[in-house]
Amino acid sequence: MIKKIYEAIDNSFDEMVEIRRYLHQHPELSFKEYKTAKYIADFYEELGIPYEKNVGGNGVVATLKGAKPGKTVALRADFDALPIQDEKDVPYKSKVDGVMHACGHDGHTSTLLTLAKVMKNYQDELTGTIVFLHQHAEEYAPGGAKPMVEAGVLENVDAVFGTHLWATTPIGVLQTSKDVFMAGADRFEITIQGQGGHGAYPHETKDSIVIGSELVSSLQQIVSRRIDPLGTAVVTVGVFEAGNAFNIIADTARIVGTVRYLDTDIQEIVVQEMNKIVEGTSIAHDVKINLDYDKGYPPLVNHAAEAELVMKASEEIEEIHTREEVIPVMGGEDFAYYTLERPGAYFFTGANKEGNPYPHHHPKFDFDERALPIAAKTLISAYFSYQKK
Amino acid sequence: MIKKIYEAIDNSFDEMVEIRRYLHQHPELSFKEYKTAKYIADFYEELGIPYEKNVGGNGVVATLKGAKPGKTVALRADFDALPIQDEKDVPYKSKVDGVMHACGHDGHTSTLLTLAKVMKNYQDELTGTIVFLHQHAEEYAPGGAKPMVEAGVLENVDAVFGTHLWATTPIGVLQTSKDVFMAGADRFEITIQGQGGHGAYPHETKDSIVIGSELVSSLQQIVSRRIDPLGTAVVTVGVFEAGNAFNIIADTARIVGTVRYLDTDIQEIVVQEMNKIVEGTSIAHDVKINLDYDKGYPPLVNHAAEAELVMKASEEIEEIHTREEVIPVMGGEDFAYYTLERPGAYFFTGANKEGNPYPHHHPKFDFDERALPIAAKTLISAYFSYQKK
Amino acid sequence: MIKKIYEAIDNSFDEMVEIRRYLHQHPELSFKEYKTAKYIADFYEELGIPYEKNVGGNGVVATLKGAKPGKTVALRADFDALPIQDEKDVPYKSKVDGVMHACGHDGHTSTLLTLAKVMKNYQDELTGTIVFLHQHAEEYAPGGAKPMVEAGVLENVDAVFGTHLWATTPIGVLQTSKDVFMAGADRFEITIQGQGGHGAYPHETKDSIVIGSELVSSLQQIVSRRIDPLGTAVVTVGVFEAGNAFNIIADTARIVGTVRYLDTDIQEIVVQEMNKIVEGTSIAHDVKINLDYDKGYPPLVNHAAEAELVMKASEEIEEIHTREEVIPVMGGEDFAYYTLERPGAYFFTGANKEGNPYPHHHPKFDFDERALPIAAKTLISAYFSYQKK
Amino acid sequence: MIKKIYEAIDNSFDEMVEIRRYLHQHPELSFKEYKTAKYIADFYEELGIPYEKNVGGNGVVATLKGAKPGKTVALRADFDALPIQDEKDVPYKSKVDGVMHACGHDGHTSTLLTLAKVMKNYQDELTGTIVFLHQHAEEYAPGGAKPMVEAGVLENVDAVFGTHLWATTPIGVLQTSKDVFMAGADRFEITIQGQGGHGAYPHETKDSIVIGSELVSSLQQIVSRRIDPLGTAVVTVGVFEAGNAFNIIADTARIVGTVRYLDTDIQEIVVQEMNKIVEGTSIAHDVKINLDYDKGYPPLVNHAAEAELVMKASEEIEEIHTREEVIPVMGGEDFAYYTLERPGAYFFTGANKEGNPYPHHHPKFDFDERALPIAAKTLISAYFSYQKK
Repeated sequence: MIKKIYEAIDNSFDEMVEIRRYLHQHPELSFKEYKTAKYIADFYEELGIPYEKNVGGNGVVATLKGAKPGKTVALRADFDALPIQDEKDVPYKSKVDGVMHACGHDGHTSTLLTLAKVMKNYQDELTGTIVFLHQHAEEYAPGGAKPMVEAGVLENVDAVFGTHLWATTPIGVLQTSKDVFMAGADRFEITIQGQGGHGAYPHETKDSIVIGSELVSSLQQIVSRRIDPLGTAVVTVGVFEAGNAFNIIADTARIVGTVRYLDTDIQEIVVQEMNKIVEGTSIAHDVKINLDYDKGYPPLVNHAAEAELVMKASEEIEEIHTREEVIPVMGGEDFAYYTLERPGAYFFTGANKEGNPYPHHHPKFDFDERALPIAAKTLISAYFSYQKK
Repeated sequence: MIKKIYEAIDNSFDEMVEIRRYLHQHPELSFKEYKTAKYIADFYEELGIPYEKNVGGNGVVATLKGAKPGKTVALRADFDALPIQDEKDVPYKSKVDGVMHACGHDGHTSTLLTLAKVMKNYQDELTGTIVFLHQHAEEYAPGGAKPMVEAGVLENVDAVFGTHLWATTPIGVLQTSKDVFMAGADRFEITIQGQGGHGAYPHETKDSIVIGSELVSSLQQIVSRRIDPLGTAVVTVGVFEAGNAFNIIADTARIVGTVRYLDTDIQEIVVQEMNKIVEGTSIAHDVKINLDYDKGYPPLVNHAAEAELVMKASEEIEEIHTREEVIPVMGGEDFAYYTLERPGAYFFTGANKEGNPYPHHHPKFDFDERALPIAAKTLISAYFSYQKK
Repeated sequence: MIKKIYEAIDNSFDEMVEIRRYLHQHPELSFKEYKTAKYIADFYEELGIPYEKNVGGNGVVATLKGAKPGKTVALRADFDALPIQDEKDVPYKSKVDGVMHACGHDGHTSTLLTLAKVMKNYQDELTGTIVFLHQHAEEYAPGGAKPMVEAGVLENVDAVFGTHLWATTPIGVLQTSKDVFMAGADRFEITIQGQGGHGAYPHETKDSIVIGSELVSSLQQIVSRRIDPLGTAVVTVGVFEAGNAFNIIADTARIVGTVRYLDTDIQEIVVQEMNKIVEGTSIAHDVKINLDYDKGYPPLVNHAAEAELVMKASEEIEEIHTREEVIPVMGGEDFAYYTLERPGAYFFTGANKEGNPYPHHHPKFDFDERALPIAAKTLISAYFSYQKK
Repeated sequence: MIKKIYEAIDNSFDEMVEIRRYLHQHPELSFKEYKTAKYIADFYEELGIPYEKNVGGNGVVATLKGAKPGKTVALRADFDALPIQDEKDVPYKSKVDGVMHACGHDGHTSTLLTLAKVMKNYQDELTGTIVFLHQHAEEYAPGGAKPMVEAGVLENVDAVFGTHLWATTPIGVLQTSKDVFMAGADRFEITIQGQGGHGAYPHETKDSIVIGSELVSSLQQIVSRRIDPLGTAVVTVGVFEAGNAFNIIADTARIVGTVRYLDTDIQEIVVQEMNKIVEGTSIAHDVKINLDYDKGYPPLVNHAAEAELVMKASEEIEEIHTREEVIPVMGGEDFAYYTLERPGAYFFTGANKEGNPYPHHHPKFDFDERALPIAAKTLISAYFSYQKK
């Protein structure tokens, strides 16, 4: 049967591309993916596959029960976009100003929808149950996975698989890990409440920009001095925003960033040190500084058996010529919540577009659409493989 | 005659307030004061005093030639507003979102217009010529004074006087200096062109926020280590702007600020040191950093004789109980260009409003309107005094 | 035979301790271990084992040729001490002010000497040749291993083994790695040539302390921003020395430190970034800054087969209850030069002294002397095991 | 009489130089000037002028009572040296390693001793009483002036004068001020108690060098942001001392410096801000930081009348061609304690040596000895002038 399914997927290539490009032109920000969710729900409606919408937010979950009893396996695709201005020069460029599918979630969704359509035709022969997890808000913690898990989407699920189209990995390469695969990712926001005033009278103010600059420099010491050199931590400030006139000392400075880590002991140290630095800076300069530290996605830890199963199962797919176990990727991924609850594995589907060197989250990000059917085949192969386990 | 004029000014108090409040509700940013300029021009039109508009930009210059020959003395009022959100709770609050007369220029204008109206009635008895200099764009270098001077407004002028309503000085106090009265004020803008990227992969980027923070800290050394402790310099960063997503390393950082100084030797040191710090930081972090340094207004140096004349002349004004020579004020003022060309003096008219502690450029700035007639009287007294010189 | 040798080692325990304590009381700094070298040479002289002295410096190499042909295996012990004041309260405390065996090299030497004495008795039954490598100057790059290798000590050697008594690992535990076992370790010295002067006139000076402080802060960015978070680098400043009067601005600042890394690509990045930061700081503050970067020991990479052989061979030693493969240790070790040339492995012999929590290089460092015979047994077991390979 | 005295002074030139050079070769550090004090006492002993020694420490006070009643005027000379290595190439170079008269106190002492010898001959004609104040320990707070005042040296004194040979001012120039003449000068010592350890394991330590560097950078903000730009403050770190091995993280860092100011309000702000920065840094990095802040000499404020008197009186001295009122000098001077208690003035006697550009406290400092008689003449002229007041 698998060969026929591969063929059916290949035959759906044009539709896959069409769906992907439609979504690419109509991106929506995390937690605001109303139209995308409707698009997905309508798709299942038309297919006649039962689904639930508004699951844990904008999530859509469709369930295809095979005629033969077996295990229930969830396949997950996320569908939110990013606050980035599309700078690609392609016909399917984003039509929404300042919003862009710069991470490939349009492709994930297209892959899963097309796979559902293909599998609908095999329902009578199918062993087990496929749960199509269309997850909203992967890009913005606390994310969509957690509320979807809380809403019970894994209740009857035995295992869960998911993939990310990976633009910096060549087509034909599958990458995964038998342990930590992706980092924990937190968000922090520091607000310095100084005291504004005329730029010519610094002594009558508390200069939030100078204080903030010192604080950013201090934060460097967390990684350089306080984390085991053999451990892994990233503390990145992504936004520094203060003042709006050259000659007025800024009242407040807003410093927003992310922390990445592979194990929670290190996360704890970062949080503790950041708190101390914030408190110390506040005292040194006699200002109020507020730290909002939002623990985001935990590290995504694959289950060894399921990761191995994905690699093994993919051997039947002729487009995949390389399978690699890779070192952890520092980007966070809320697929982590699924493998905390159920056996499962996440993997990368190589999708590098020749001549496009731009990484995920870049204004010129794109991927090779030939990766879409490869992703679909790998997911469904994992499904079948798991049934035999 | 002066007593009658004082009386006429006092009788114009309600109109003065009305004009001031009208302008307060309709503030316009520097170089964009089209409606304000028209308001002023229309006022002179109606009075029948000849005027020119669009002088050196939005400037308006009216000339009242007295019946008796004498000296030509210019009186100056500026009329632009600031990009500040009015946070006062008063009926005459700004009606323009994000724009506010937070420096008293509405009052300056009202003072000069009302004075012109009063003086029109005395044209037949008047010795000499009054030039009413309504200057645009004082708040934003290169300012309006320079182009107005270049347009020839001082050509036939013998001396020039001007005042600033000063909200932190009590009513009844007149302040001036016989030498440097206000600081030189420059503007600089530093742009760090780093290399953006995913927040989890700092090593693939050049982090413009961390680099910019270091640069801001380095700039502190100019004042703390490189300027003679007995000299005076201020280096203020008013804007630090970088990044727009917590998990994306910012490509560029924009750092904008002001420099204040009392003599040009120190200005030179600041410029030279800033250039070195910018170049060094650029090399240390292998990024392109651009510094635009706009020399703004030079220090405002009063002429000793004219400053003394203002103080002496004001003795006839009973509301003024105190005359002070004060140390230089760090705020810049493009009145400086006038006293570079002609004898003249600038002075502060005390205008503190009881219960309002907010300084100039504060969102809650306001002043006591009783200062308006005092300002008008002092200006016209200086005029008459200069005629007798 | 091995059992008898183990017994002979056990019977030599008192002598082992005596030798170790003698050396502990007479420590000598790296490259100045003249008396220690003589002590070792005299020992072999007395034993009647042929040796060479002054090998590549103060090195001593003795060769015990077994009666039966076989492989030549070198066993290495280092013998220099550290510039640390001994603060232990024990009878065998260092008698040399400011110098201390704070790393266990006294124990290494005692182990190897005693083993030589034991093995001398088995010369007639011995297969192969044992080379006893007594190496000077491990603590101070460029170290003694390199010149000893250059002097040809490995010329006829087939494999090389060595151990470190490890004070933070419990007795009975053997630790090693099949790959990178210890980090690369470099030394750098930065000299800022500012311009001194009176503390009250900073503007006439170039303040090397303020500049040096900024530089130390900048160096933090190498690890925090420029190294792959999954890679490993340490940049430590161990010495900051500037000025000698509170009211005189320091002419020069001396900043000395170490860099640690596990692969040379990262070493290259550190060197390159440090050079840029030094150059940039020099330009920003218009001072001459000199950077001497001495590449020290490369990472110590064990050969997998030999590491496995050590672990396997040690199974006969009953005191060893645990064998662990461990993550790399950040301290440098010039044993690295031996395994660059020949197959070999380095391992740690657990030597934690109950109640003494102090790490290597601490003024109160000590180890459990019961580890000495364990170290000797493991080395000789590896020797025999390699003969059978 | 004054002309004869001038002549007598001129005739004593060789002896003045001899005394000065003897003292120059035998410098002693502050509070340890035992031999110098004995030298001075012996001098008065031989002259037969009554004196007291050990006044408030090593001070020596001699009193020459004139035959005619009049006012009592104290003339002061300090006599301690500095911890600086003499690098001049002259026959009278310091014979004491690391100690040097690098500030001219040898000259002050020679001036006053020679003047005493000259005046002894005029005792019978003399009106009033001259008190020769030989003060120890001017270079090192808390200094010698305070304990000498406390010991009662000013009790019967009506006025006090003193001079400093000023090496950067040309011969023939007299400089003084009618108000603040020299700055307040404090000393601070900051000790950071971090936690040392191996350079490869920063996360197990608290790195006192990195913390200290951040602190030094933070201190820059006191002057750059917290002091009125029109006010005057200097915060200089003169010593940064931490660590003694390149690969060991330093346990403690010692940061020692000076603060200069012209009025005590600013001193208060500096102290308060330094305390906050120290406390904040301590909290940010979880280390103990101790700040010892020793308030040193207050600003030296001349009395206007006495300063004028000095200038006026000096008009009779033909070598003096220029009298200048100057801006405050940032160096501290404990002569301040005398003018807090009595009318008085301090002045600089120009002493620049042609071809020697080195300032006070420089290892090559020297002065033109022709300034010695000029200093003596100015002091005695002030004395006589004050008698007539």
